[in-house]
Amino acid sequence: MRSNNIKSLWSQGQATVNGWLSIPSSVSAEIMAHQGWDSLTIDLQHGLVDYQTALTMLQAVSTKDATPLARVPWLEAGIIMKLLDAGAYGIICPMINTPEEAQRFVSYCRYAPLGQRSFGPTRAVFYAGADYAQHANDTVLTLAMIETRQALDNVAAIAATPGLDGLYIGPSDLSLSMGYTPKLDQEEPAVVEAIEAIRKAAKDAAISVGIHCLEPSYAQRMIDQGFDMVTIGSDIRLLGAAAAAAVKVSKAKG
Amino acid sequence: MRSNNIKSLWSQGQATVNGWLSIPSSVSAEIMAHQGWDSLTIDLQHGLVDYQTALTMLQAVSTKDATPLARVPWLEAGIIMKLLDAGAYGIICPMINTPEEAQRFVSYCRYAPLGQRSFGPTRAVFYAGADYAQHANDTVLTLAMIETRQALDNVAAIAATPGLDGLYIGPSDLSLSMGYTPKLDQEEPAVVEAIEAIRKAAKDAAISVGIHCLEPSYAQRMIDQGFDMVTIGSDIRLLGAAAAAAVKVSKAKG
Amino acid sequence: MRSNNIKSLWSQGQATVNGWLSIPSSVSAEIMAHQGWDSLTIDLQHGLVDYQTALTMLQAVSTKDATPLARVPWLEAGIIMKLLDAGAYGIICPMINTPEEAQRFVSYCRYAPLGQRSFGPTRAVFYAGADYAQHANDTVLTLAMIETRQALDNVAAIAATPGLDGLYIGPSDLSLSMGYTPKLDQEEPAVVEAIEAIRKAAKDAAISVGIHCLEPSYAQRMIDQGFDMVTIGSDIRLLGAAAAAAVKVSKAKG
Amino acid sequence: MRSNNIKSLWSQGQATVNGWLSIPSSVSAEIMAHQGWDSLTIDLQHGLVDYQTALTMLQAVSTKDATPLARVPWLEAGIIMKLLDAGAYGIICPMINTPEEAQRFVSYCRYAPLGQRSFGPTRAVFYAGADYAQHANDTVLTLAMIETRQALDNVAAIAATPGLDGLYIGPSDLSLSMGYTPKLDQEEPAVVEAIEAIRKAAKDAAISVGIHCLEPSYAQRMIDQGFDMVTIGSDIRLLGAAAAAAVKVSKAKG
Amino acid sequence: MRSNNIKSLWSQGQATVNGWLSIPSSVSAEIMAHQGWDSLTIDLQHGLVDYQTALTMLQAVSTKDATPLARVPWLEAGIIMKLLDAGAYGIICPMINTPEEAQRFVSYCRYAPLGQRSFGPTRAVFYAGADYAQHANDTVLTLAMIETRQALDNVAAIAATPGLDGLYIGPSDLSLSMGYTPKLDQEEPAVVEAIEAIRKAAKDAAISVGIHCLEPSYAQRMIDQGFDMVTIGSDIRLLGAAAAAAVKVSKAKG
Amino acid sequence: MRSNNIKSLWSQGQATVNGWLSIPSSVSAEIMAHQGWDSLTIDLQHGLVDYQTALTMLQAVSTKDATPLARVPWLEAGIIMKLLDAGAYGIICPMINTPEEAQRFVSYCRYAPLGQRSFGPTRAVFYAGADYAQHANDTVLTLAMIETRQALDNVAAIAATPGLDGLYIGPSDLSLSMGYTPKLDQEEPAVVEAIEAIRKAAKDAAISVGIHCLEPSYAQRMIDQGFDMVTIGSDIRLLGAAAAAAVKVSKAKG
Repeated sequence: MRSNNIKSLWSQGQATVNGWLSIPSSVSAEIMAHQGWDSLTIDLQHGLVDYQTALTMLQAVSTKDATPLARVPWLEAGIIMKLLDAGAYGIICPMINTPEEAQRFVSYCRYAPLGQRSFGPTRAVFYAGADYAQHANDTVLTLAMIETRQALDNVAAIAATPGLDGLYIGPSDLSLSMGYTPKLDQEEPAVVEAIEAIRKAAKDAAISVGIHCLEPSYAQRMIDQGFDMVTIGSDIRLLGAAAAAAVKVSKAKG
Repeated sequence: MRSNNIKSLWSQGQATVNGWLSIPSSVSAEIMAHQGWDSLTIDLQHGLVDYQTALTMLQAVSTKDATPLARVPWLEAGIIMKLLDAGAYGIICPMINTPEEAQRFVSYCRYAPLGQRSFGPTRAVFYAGADYAQHANDTVLTLAMIETRQALDNVAAIAATPGLDGLYIGPSDLSLSMGYTPKLDQEEPAVVEAIEAIRKAAKDAAISVGIHCLEPSYAQRMIDQGFDMVTIGSDIRLLGAAAAAAVKVSKAKG
Repeated sequence: MRSNNIKSLWSQGQATVNGWLSIPSSVSAEIMAHQGWDSLTIDLQHGLVDYQTALTMLQAVSTKDATPLARVPWLEAGIIMKLLDAGAYGIICPMINTPEEAQRFVSYCRYAPLGQRSFGPTRAVFYAGADYAQHANDTVLTLAMIETRQALDNVAAIAATPGLDGLYIGPSDLSLSMGYTPKLDQEEPAVVEAIEAIRKAAKDAAISVGIHCLEPSYAQRMIDQGFDMVTIGSDIRLLGAAAAAAVKVSKAKG
Repeated sequence: MRSNNIKSLWSQGQATVNGWLSIPSSVSAEIMAHQGWDSLTIDLQHGLVDYQTALTMLQAVSTKDATPLARVPWLEAGIIMKLLDAGAYGIICPMINTPEEAQRFVSYCRYAPLGQRSFGPTRAVFYAGADYAQHANDTVLTLAMIETRQALDNVAAIAATPGLDGLYIGPSDLSLSMGYTPKLDQEEPAVVEAIEAIRKAAKDAAISVGIHCLEPSYAQRMIDQGFDMVTIGSDIRLLGAAAAAAVKVSKAKG
Repeated sequence: MRSNNIKSLWSQGQATVNGWLSIPSSVSAEIMAHQGWDSLTIDLQHGLVDYQTALTMLQAVSTKDATPLARVPWLEAGIIMKLLDAGAYGIICPMINTPEEAQRFVSYCRYAPLGQRSFGPTRAVFYAGADYAQHANDTVLTLAMIETRQALDNVAAIAATPGLDGLYIGPSDLSLSMGYTPKLDQEEPAVVEAIEAIRKAAKDAAISVGIHCLEPSYAQRMIDQGFDMVTIGSDIRLLGAAAAAAVKVSKAKG
Repeated sequence: MRSNNIKSLWSQGQATVNGWLSIPSSVSAEIMAHQGWDSLTIDLQHGLVDYQTALTMLQAVSTKDATPLARVPWLEAGIIMKLLDAGAYGIICPMINTPEEAQRFVSYCRYAPLGQRSFGPTRAVFYAGADYAQHANDTVLTLAMIETRQALDNVAAIAATPGLDGLYIGPSDLSLSMGYTPKLDQEEPAVVEAIEAIRKAAKDAAISVGIHCLEPSYAQRMIDQGFDMVTIGSDIRLLGAAAAAAVKVSKAKG
């Protein structure tokens, strides 16, 4: 079975840089696949993408080396399993607030006896190889989003969930839940402290930890602070910002 | 009928900045529509876009103010008329090398008695208004691409085509045709000279002239040199470059 | 943030007329957007529409002024939040039978501290404006469908749910649940009485109330009877009926 | 091979009523397929439809009995043959202005030795039956649009083209070409006279003749005047008009 | 209302052969519809298909006689009802492990008073006929997948669920759950025994029973052993195997 | 630049086996990409595929090693160049009947000074590499279909066209044009003789030659007779035949 590059890099102590696909297009996905990301996550939650398009994006990502992940809309079994069958090598699940939710999430991603994932890796065998059944439970990443005050309170117990590979921090929702303006790249002390607490909880539980960022420089700082995985903005933000800057320069007086 | 902003700005002596849509997605089109471009051109030639997707992109562009244009794959009547019926407010036609081709191009874009465009502005009336039939011939832009040595030789005659609104320079093909490496933002003296000759031919014929650029700074220079319309890169280049830069910064050692 | 026309009209004591989009097409959506409806609801329940197509329909509706709403397939968090992120200005949720379901529904539509909606209004900021986060909780409509006998029994408690903006009556399911033939534009006394009871419950709770109708004349009557919102048939019914009538006339003997 | 209902009805002296599909959707196509039309034409010229969507519309039409036709964007070989291979039972070709164009059109629709259609009826055999090769030349309808003054001048020669099954009048373009406002259901005497001349030319050549109409009552009149085929409006017009009327009634004061 | 061929054949004591659609395409669906299957199941669980594409596949299947069924991703109300509204004549629901789940599944497929299915058979009336409401509860098939050890333990109680039409065995998951390699066409004695126990439970409850197979010969054996319904492989397996065999022969030395 | 495997294999004296993609789906394309074909041709002529879908199929094929080719609907510049820009490594053009047509075909596939292909290899650089411009003229295959009696008469002159890489025989159209039933795997002596004449003409001109076959055994024979490239059936035929055989076995009495 094709190995999971993210797991390999993490096992070597390296942090990974994750791109974020919110545009529902196999073309934008293929563009992103050529830019050097370690992984690319198709966002079916806040991204403007649903399953059928995500499938073509997984194909486009498969033309290059970045490891394909998917964020699902919610802790719903159907879409999680569909994305794994389509070849996603990991799932980021939003709003995991309790250990029970974490266990349920993991159970949807693991075959028996570790979980209740149904067997039928239709496209996954094309991407991964014919021996997918034997290795999937060890290869597919399960990342639980910690993004509410409740999750923060439960973070140690969530991190201890058997089969959970990592925590993934959503700073916007976490800020909102703590009473602050929803934003990425937070400098608000209370939120920064909470982020550090989550990071530490992951490390204490010997699992990985990632964080959603906006600016590359902030992402780099997070790597320096010990995060295993950083995400930068999204294809939508990258395109929008680059276009706005181009218009501005073009219209500047010579 | 909704007026054509490009024509309005040109009539006021202002140059316009044009964005370029090569990703086949109404979402990337809508992102671009929010960045301040004067016009947005859906590229059905080298862009990865065909009619059915272009239609949804025209809808997305219609949610904001940028004037929608389309570049067609070739001087073929069917697709030119389909795009006008779908609400494009101008057509950029590649590889216009002779006055005869220029006349044919114009004829596909104009209703009788000026041309042979067939009547049926199905979506255009939604975008433009119910009086489309009366004003379309005065509103729709016809831009002929000058991008070969043959076209260069014929440029005065092409520019004199009745009903042609402007010339649009494709520096890559022009370079290739002149024996140079195909590239945008040319500094090669012979190509630069040719570009200036085309610009002058347009001005001599009292029509407009645009040029396809890559970098905003080069585009700005072209405006200073008297171009009426500059295009910057494409959504694909903007996204790819922004992503590559983000990865690079993220992976830099702190 | 762009205001919600429906809320504005209601606050002025005006009833609104809602169109219904069941054809999965951005073209039929754009046609409907030009006919003068106050709002247009994309039906992801009984309509033949899923998220990815609904997204392009939201774009098409955004080219004009009708306020975009969506009916979701069921009380499921994932799709509700996806549609709000895509720019829907209100959600109609079917089969709200208990106050607990009503609370859960509202919680999916409201950001903390009022609810558990996850933050990431990706397209919504394009439609609504950059200050979406501040005003979304006050702008997005939450309409609970009352369409079973159980819901009827619980209607006062449902109507009292904090954050719920209105009740929306589904006469077909309500009829079926009460033992009658499922149909719109009911004249069956028991159902008519139930409808009036629901209307009154909404008014007693100082929230709005809408009803799904078939014929415009019935809808007009409902407005006269104090409904704030009436829906007429669907694009499928309108097209089918108009086509059948056209065929009939054409084939009549001269 | 499944017979062509249109040809059967015509051979019995009956006029046929044709519906017009301009919305790019298999759902609107299926709705229309249930309303009693004798044939349904997918419009790839002024309709908002391209091949890939037309294919699904042909499938939807195949669930019922109306004979599927297609209007192509222009006299271009590629798309004509693709639509026949996809199962269209006839082609309406716009802007046939000369006998040479008529011959070329027919040649694209007929297998050797009658024409140059390439062999490969991939979906057509599913719709028509395994013996498609033997009967296609006798089954597929070729209808040339007469819609310019030039075509009017050449109408007798065009009508005499071997293998041409009928003329189809486009009153909007014909009006425009003759110097009048482009519209359907013409009452302008000069245009009415031209229409009658075309009808007569078809009859003199012993081929069929159709006309594009807007209102069912006008269509009915055309049948009475001897037309073999009348088209009514389009799905876009039917839906738009029905919706506008519904809004108007709903908003009328009670 | 169009009758359900599967129910008719079963009532005559005949076993039915079911095809399996995992490719998300109306074209592959139409190909399969011409090969003589008694029913065709669109697989939205492990198949690479989501609702919007499934809809076009249902249309394609409707051009011929095979009865259309759908397997849903999970026991989720929204998608089950959407597929029935789209015209599926039966639902196969995975992972029914308890009588409570079986009851919930049935309730989603039946109108009141038998269940809680919401009324709005938008496309179903096109496929089935205008009297769908009266006959749907008797026509739509509900098939619960038995594919875990827990389900095996509960099989008698599940089979006794009022309104459940049949059990459908998923040998891969069942094997996995019992500690064996996930595979179809099992010969492993313990699994074979479990399969027989499930078959018998269905018969004891006087309901039908189907099984998912790979090879036609195994399927034939299952019919001989008393199964009412057998599924063979999938379109993906059929195409892949046929292509691999063709390549092999072509490359063999002459 | 990624080399063209077909050219490499031919230069080593090996014949190549080509698969044929007529189903418009990136999933069926990916299935086929895993079966060992040397090349895969997306058929935009008789296949049910248009550009936008072909693009996703090219992406799917790019996940594996088979070289992607495309057959275009007709000798039309727009679609040929679009497919090359999308990453096709060769074009099969139908109905090349004269040397002039062959020259025109080649000119559309070659950059200046060898031809008139417009520069803009948008996706091709992703597939091929950044140095596409330098090597494209040597890498992209141009295959002219010989499939009429006229082409047969002109075959030596066609084969001598500078820049043409090979002839590709379409036996069905060739048979039809010669007065025989259109079919593949011909044994009709006159057609067999014509096929051999075409093969010899290619060899005399020192270019390659391929033939469209149905059965693998016939294809194997063609390789033995000196063909460089053989195509087997199509995905549609493979799937249909495999499914029909499976149904037959399943329904056989045990």
